[in-house]
Amino acid sequence: MASRKSGKAGAGKQPSKAWAGRFREPTDRLVEAFSRSIAVDKRLYPQDIRGSIAHCQTLAKAGVLSRRDQAAIVRGLQLVQHELERERFKFLPEDEDIHMAIERRLTELIGPLGGKLHTGRSRNDQVALDVRLYVREQLTVLIERLTEFQRVLVAQATKHLDVPMPGYTHLQRAQPVLLAHHLLAYVEMFLRDQARLADARTRVNVMPLGSGALAGSNYPVDRLYTATLLDFPAVTQNSLDAVSDRDFMIEVAAALAVIMMHLSRMSEELILWATQEFHFVDLPDGFCTGSSMMPQKKNPDVPELVRGKTGRVYGHLIGLMTTLKALPLSYNRDLQEDKPALFDALDTTQDCVEVMTELMRRLKVDRAALTRALTGGGMLATELADYLVTRGVPFREAHAITGKIVRWALDAGRELSDLTVKELGVFSPRFEKSVLQRLTVQGAIDRKSQIGGTARAQVVRRLKELTKLLA
Amino acid sequence: MASRKSGKAGAGKQPSKAWAGRFREPTDRLVEAFSRSIAVDKRLYPQDIRGSIAHCQTLAKAGVLSRRDQAAIVRGLQLVQHELERERFKFLPEDEDIHMAIERRLTELIGPLGGKLHTGRSRNDQVALDVRLYVREQLTVLIERLTEFQRVLVAQATKHLDVPMPGYTHLQRAQPVLLAHHLLAYVEMFLRDQARLADARTRVNVMPLGSGALAGSNYPVDRLYTATLLDFPAVTQNSLDAVSDRDFMIEVAAALAVIMMHLSRMSEELILWATQEFHFVDLPDGFCTGSSMMPQKKNPDVPELVRGKTGRVYGHLIGLMTTLKALPLSYNRDLQEDKPALFDALDTTQDCVEVMTELMRRLKVDRAALTRALTGGGMLATELADYLVTRGVPFREAHAITGKIVRWALDAGRELSDLTVKELGVFSPRFEKSVLQRLTVQGAIDRKSQIGGTARAQVVRRLKELTKLLA
Amino acid sequence: MASRKSGKAGAGKQPSKAWAGRFREPTDRLVEAFSRSIAVDKRLYPQDIRGSIAHCQTLAKAGVLSRRDQAAIVRGLQLVQHELERERFKFLPEDEDIHMAIERRLTELIGPLGGKLHTGRSRNDQVALDVRLYVREQLTVLIERLTEFQRVLVAQATKHLDVPMPGYTHLQRAQPVLLAHHLLAYVEMFLRDQARLADARTRVNVMPLGSGALAGSNYPVDRLYTATLLDFPAVTQNSLDAVSDRDFMIEVAAALAVIMMHLSRMSEELILWATQEFHFVDLPDGFCTGSSMMPQKKNPDVPELVRGKTGRVYGHLIGLMTTLKALPLSYNRDLQEDKPALFDALDTTQDCVEVMTELMRRLKVDRAALTRALTGGGMLATELADYLVTRGVPFREAHAITGKIVRWALDAGRELSDLTVKELGVFSPRFEKSVLQRLTVQGAIDRKSQIGGTARAQVVRRLKELTKLLA
Amino acid sequence: MASRKSGKAGAGKQPSKAWAGRFREPTDRLVEAFSRSIAVDKRLYPQDIRGSIAHCQTLAKAGVLSRRDQAAIVRGLQLVQHELERERFKFLPEDEDIHMAIERRLTELIGPLGGKLHTGRSRNDQVALDVRLYVREQLTVLIERLTEFQRVLVAQATKHLDVPMPGYTHLQRAQPVLLAHHLLAYVEMFLRDQARLADARTRVNVMPLGSGALAGSNYPVDRLYTATLLDFPAVTQNSLDAVSDRDFMIEVAAALAVIMMHLSRMSEELILWATQEFHFVDLPDGFCTGSSMMPQKKNPDVPELVRGKTGRVYGHLIGLMTTLKALPLSYNRDLQEDKPALFDALDTTQDCVEVMTELMRRLKVDRAALTRALTGGGMLATELADYLVTRGVPFREAHAITGKIVRWALDAGRELSDLTVKELGVFSPRFEKSVLQRLTVQGAIDRKSQIGGTARAQVVRRLKELTKLLA
Repeated sequence: MASRKSGKAGAGKQPSKAWAGRFREPTDRLVEAFSRSIAVDKRLYPQDIRGSIAHCQTLAKAGVLSRRDQAAIVRGLQLVQHELERERFKFLPEDEDIHMAIERRLTELIGPLGGKLHTGRSRNDQVALDVRLYVREQLTVLIERLTEFQRVLVAQATKHLDVPMPGYTHLQRAQPVLLAHHLLAYVEMFLRDQARLADARTRVNVMPLGSGALAGSNYPVDRLYTATLLDFPAVTQNSLDAVSDRDFMIEVAAALAVIMMHLSRMSEELILWATQEFHFVDLPDGFCTGSSMMPQKKNPDVPELVRGKTGRVYGHLIGLMTTLKALPLSYNRDLQEDKPALFDALDTTQDCVEVMTELMRRLKVDRAALTRALTGGGMLATELADYLVTRGVPFREAHAITGKIVRWALDAGRELSDLTVKELGVFSPRFEKSVLQRLTVQGAIDRKSQIGGTARAQVVRRLKELTKLLA
Repeated sequence: MASRKSGKAGAGKQPSKAWAGRFREPTDRLVEAFSRSIAVDKRLYPQDIRGSIAHCQTLAKAGVLSRRDQAAIVRGLQLVQHELERERFKFLPEDEDIHMAIERRLTELIGPLGGKLHTGRSRNDQVALDVRLYVREQLTVLIERLTEFQRVLVAQATKHLDVPMPGYTHLQRAQPVLLAHHLLAYVEMFLRDQARLADARTRVNVMPLGSGALAGSNYPVDRLYTATLLDFPAVTQNSLDAVSDRDFMIEVAAALAVIMMHLSRMSEELILWATQEFHFVDLPDGFCTGSSMMPQKKNPDVPELVRGKTGRVYGHLIGLMTTLKALPLSYNRDLQEDKPALFDALDTTQDCVEVMTELMRRLKVDRAALTRALTGGGMLATELADYLVTRGVPFREAHAITGKIVRWALDAGRELSDLTVKELGVFSPRFEKSVLQRLTVQGAIDRKSQIGGTARAQVVRRLKELTKLLA
Repeated sequence: MASRKSGKAGAGKQPSKAWAGRFREPTDRLVEAFSRSIAVDKRLYPQDIRGSIAHCQTLAKAGVLSRRDQAAIVRGLQLVQHELERERFKFLPEDEDIHMAIERRLTELIGPLGGKLHTGRSRNDQVALDVRLYVREQLTVLIERLTEFQRVLVAQATKHLDVPMPGYTHLQRAQPVLLAHHLLAYVEMFLRDQARLADARTRVNVMPLGSGALAGSNYPVDRLYTATLLDFPAVTQNSLDAVSDRDFMIEVAAALAVIMMHLSRMSEELILWATQEFHFVDLPDGFCTGSSMMPQKKNPDVPELVRGKTGRVYGHLIGLMTTLKALPLSYNRDLQEDKPALFDALDTTQDCVEVMTELMRRLKVDRAALTRALTGGGMLATELADYLVTRGVPFREAHAITGKIVRWALDAGRELSDLTVKELGVFSPRFEKSVLQRLTVQGAIDRKSQIGGTARAQVVRRLKELTKLLA
Repeated sequence: MASRKSGKAGAGKQPSKAWAGRFREPTDRLVEAFSRSIAVDKRLYPQDIRGSIAHCQTLAKAGVLSRRDQAAIVRGLQLVQHELERERFKFLPEDEDIHMAIERRLTELIGPLGGKLHTGRSRNDQVALDVRLYVREQLTVLIERLTEFQRVLVAQATKHLDVPMPGYTHLQRAQPVLLAHHLLAYVEMFLRDQARLADARTRVNVMPLGSGALAGSNYPVDRLYTATLLDFPAVTQNSLDAVSDRDFMIEVAAALAVIMMHLSRMSEELILWATQEFHFVDLPDGFCTGSSMMPQKKNPDVPELVRGKTGRVYGHLIGLMTTLKALPLSYNRDLQEDKPALFDALDTTQDCVEVMTELMRRLKVDRAALTRALTGGGMLATELADYLVTRGVPFREAHAITGKIVRWALDAGRELSDLTVKELGVFSPRFEKSVLQRLTVQGAIDRKSQIGGTARAQVVRRLKELTKLLA
């Protein structure tokens, strides 16, 4: 640490901390460097100031602060905010965190009066408030970004409404589906992600200020009033819980992890589809990079990075959960580790959603390759089996008969769709001419016509619903 | 594996698989042992049979199955269920999973007609349905168990309404709180857990059958009808998504992990409180065990085990998330690994909730120890600072003055509550006689009288609300 | 739990526990069910008995046990082992774990003398010993299995020594390599895995018995003698550490997780290579399964399951680490959770190695497909650039020139290897006829002739080394 | 991302990338911001330049580079290093990573000749080399720091050689041990950690350069020569493996996670010991902080933060493992995510070791509190049981008798050490006067006199060994 952060063991002359009264020696410089959180929590300054202003107003309403003092403090806070916004704020080494830095600067600007701001408040409930305000905003942003992403997917689906492709299970060609249907599968995932984020948001959206350090506040503050000022529909109901609860962070991190999981699946598919072997798509040049050594390379870096960053977000989730494990009530300093994990998880997920949105917006589909891929692989075998069912054969038997036909066709190097009725007749007397209509890609797709099936009509129906929903 | 499971490489004579038509050689015995899932998915038989019956009814409604065939199959399925319930069902080595085992037995009982059951259905949508049915039930059970747990906590809080204790931050005595307030902090956590489970349940509660293997079904099945039969309010909207979606499992696992995190915090506290050093509680003998070597030992095994099992559930969550990472659409066999993880996470969490409920029900509090713990530690220092605030001193200054008093008292080996007005006067002229009323545990508690504060009145108010809520 | 395990809250008449002296009430039945570990630790019986025999001998050497008593106890233990091996041992509900079960049965067989076995020993050091014995054996087995796996890979590489294929970066064709070289990449990974397991084994291979419950033993036991009896080269040096150390389990689990990571990479490649799009290999029928619905399907289940099980082992690792986090010294009951995680991680990894060994043994390569894949993709572009370097062009400039040629060839639908010297001359005057020799797959491969390069000579050299090493 | 990083979608005029030849459009600005790694890999510049110099020398030895060119390039690289060291290096937005930045600046300084540096090298093997050089150094540093930490623990143990304390299992007082013995338990853990790091170092310490992008180099480079120049005892044996292997990172991260686990256990104990309830130690004021609200608070922030950061390192490990899961060979861009995780894990662990070393150096022990804690809790019960064993009672019976004595003493509010021979005689006729000598803390400690026991003589022996080892 010494080398990296210029902290140095031993305690020289240091400006004293706000809480230093009962201490005999100043904080060790090594410890100061070790425990500072300002690089991470600095981004919370708008929330911190907003919360402090609401706190002042609540103190004033309670008669704890005169209206005049309140006005002076609020003005001071606005000045501090102004400095921070313009990057004119000078951070000092003894500023352990953004909260103390703001209070320190406030007191420089307005004098001892600044010392009244922290009346009836602890950093414990203050930080809880700031983070909730911040996460609430971020969730709103992320939900909107997911909407935009879905719009892009719906637009691509609409554009490619008539493009069939092989549907896969086990990465083996299984049955033909519409590319639009495939794209909409991801829209369903992101809809669930949004629902999860919205559910999490209701648990974020609860006002903790007034919980004090752990037991509540010694002043008759009206917490519902503070909540109104800050647009919270509810207040926390137990002070011990309020200062030590990080459920909302874990819940958000878990929802982010699932989003990343979805993006990793999409990335995997894009990487596959961009191979020379599949070549279902062309990634835009601007979203790929080359090789420092091999001049011909065009690499799908963006989906690879997104897939790789999945690990990062998973890691933050497990990190948060580990930190919380077996902590006794109420606040413990371990909780300082919550913010680096959650903030990076939020940033990473938002960046990934944003860059994938643009990638998908510009994705080009290689229709010829998709068409080629539809021949071969016996993707119409199920149609054959289901034909036999309509002719009275129990499905299991029909399946077995068709399996043998597939085996024979494979050995003979034949396509199912090229077999004659006579050839089929060897395997079952039930085959008649009508079977041939059955053995087309278009027919196979359009027969899957229940809700959720890949039939064109169903896909169109869902596209309409989604377009309306995302408008 | 060979030694453990009696699988053996090489393929002897084996009964053929339902899907074996296109295969030239039977499944290798080693592979058979490796890929069997029946030990895990066996528990799904009631859901599987219930789902199959609904599927039959839907096929009949669609005219795919005659009413007579339907009735025969349903009767057959009921017989199979009967055998399973009475543990008379004979599993065969070639039964890869419970679904194939049931169909195999059905066909033995009712003949080739059994082969009609799988019409228009794939194991992919079948399994998705079974697991959703199962998880839906388990969530209901778990939510109920959490309600019972909360009732016990509320009862203990009510019983100990007049017992104060030290509240802690950083595991240092901070301010006095009511034990009831401390217990209710956990009720708040479990309320959030229930809300999370309920939210997850809405995403579990969507009917996937009719999605086929990946593309939908070739039969005109009415999926809304199936949903009604099985009490689902909604159906999945995309077949590719429906067979590969495991979000609901991850979401449930994440909610379980948070429950375990809460239980680990409670366990940590119980273990601390049961030490000779704290001794705030007596754990019931029946919930402790002794040592094989040390005759005096009475160990808090139950909370220790619960705390230890937190790792287990965290592990299942990360296992699930890892398995899903970067899987291309749609179904892949990797997904078979979802059930061992989720089922064990559900079992473990339910067991832990149950055993902790009983433990808390019988917990005995050592009031004398709690009272002793309230002296010392300067827990009334904040009262002193807030007294000065009421006398016009800005909080920061008041904090600094009090800090010096604490330092002096520590050095002098004195308790804050024993200081005289004269002694206090040395530190600030603002101290008057009225300060003495301020320096009582009861007063400190009752001044925290906002919503969520530890004041008796507030705790009573919340107890009433909770009692009503949990009724 | 009640329903699943037939445990039931409340304490009926129960046989008393060995440690029950100071207890007033028996263990609650619910707790008994909750805390039993016998289903998991039962497999440790051979190690437990072996350890107990060595303990007896040590006690006898120390004069704590008469030779006669020793002989009787050892005979008794052998009887118990006999019963266990023949599955004639009757477990009772009050047997909390295998250790207590064996002692209980021993005492039934040889009377109160059995009560002498536990002299100077605690379950804490006893369990530590048993698990170390077990893990030590398992590591030996796993290391051997990895050797066999490598032999199979070396055999396949030798067999396919003349088969070139595209090497990939970013899943884009990059440069031609030998298939043998690709297979040997995995051998390198498994060599490292073996080295890690061997390193872990040295830390497993330390004898903990004699550490008592936490402080040591009250008897003058010669721990080095016990170590000799049990083939341990060293003994633990601190009793507190010895009973609470689970490092060796985490270290083994981490090594297993890396093995699974390697297997997941190989699985991913096999799944890709088995697609209709790549089709580089044919998986043996016996290692694939079909679909319950689609008759044509042949799915790569084995590599999919292996890839999926990676999550399982990762989960066990994180579970173990979570359980250990922040546990105070020395033994805590949380540690009981170590065995289910570690044992399943060991089983899973061994099964996966075994099944992948057989799969790779029978893998068939589609040479035609590999050859086809070598045309296209501009895989010789680096050769072109390096040709220019030999003609005096700085590499960066050569790279840029070649990039333009690639671009032009792509637009013109031409293969690099088909370009004429004249055409190349448009881009740089340095191209001469000699360039054409450069543009062959064979040449490209054989020019990579440093240690570790894909040149045939290098691959042959490494094959020889490995063959010797694995003999 | 837009707002945070000033990246902006759309492609304006941009300086072209070194690999841009085959591309038609420049990298999208959003993608540029998304994929840049320079903020993270910047720290690798000394390793990168050192590696590049060795690469030049190797190219010169192979005759690929003239001695004159080599000298010029090396001089240029030294200039670049000089600029970087003095923080005079100007990074440009198009510098994607430190490697490209250095090459770009080199070419500015020495002209097109700079373009020769990358001959026969790819970023893939270049990065692999840089990271190995870096991690190798960091491991050396960390191993040294752990040695210093152990020295501090040994010094504290030596200083407190005569201080007994309660040993705990299940956090219940179990048997008396020496505080020195307790401290040395951690030394054993850190010894194992060092051994693990040293083992990992042998697998880090392998030279990958010359592996090219994936297949090797087209130039006759002598890789053993490069290895000698860079102090590597070995070179990688397979190019595909060399560019995609991240085992060494996972192995290091896992070893770091275990170190953090150990530190979390020590932290937990320090936090417990610093409570008012235990009060075994006084943490130095300089290592604690106060509360913004409660003037009396002195919080054990340092161990709390260390305990909290355990989650961070666990998270990085799981992040790395997730990123590697199921990646096909060879290099994939996902791997860029390896460095943020590993670097932060290394930094965090080193910081934690450093700060805990200083904390432990200044720790003050409260002997009076430890002495008080030795009475009560029946910690001598095992002595009583073992006394009976020496009088011929089988241990199990002795345990049961002692259990009853404990029960009786508890009920009577008596200490075991205060019981009379007569009172004991009620429970067994075997008790004689000699039992009283047995019931002392000192005796209980010194009877644990095997290797690893807590007897003073054993602790002194181990202290001597360790002092020698750490010298």
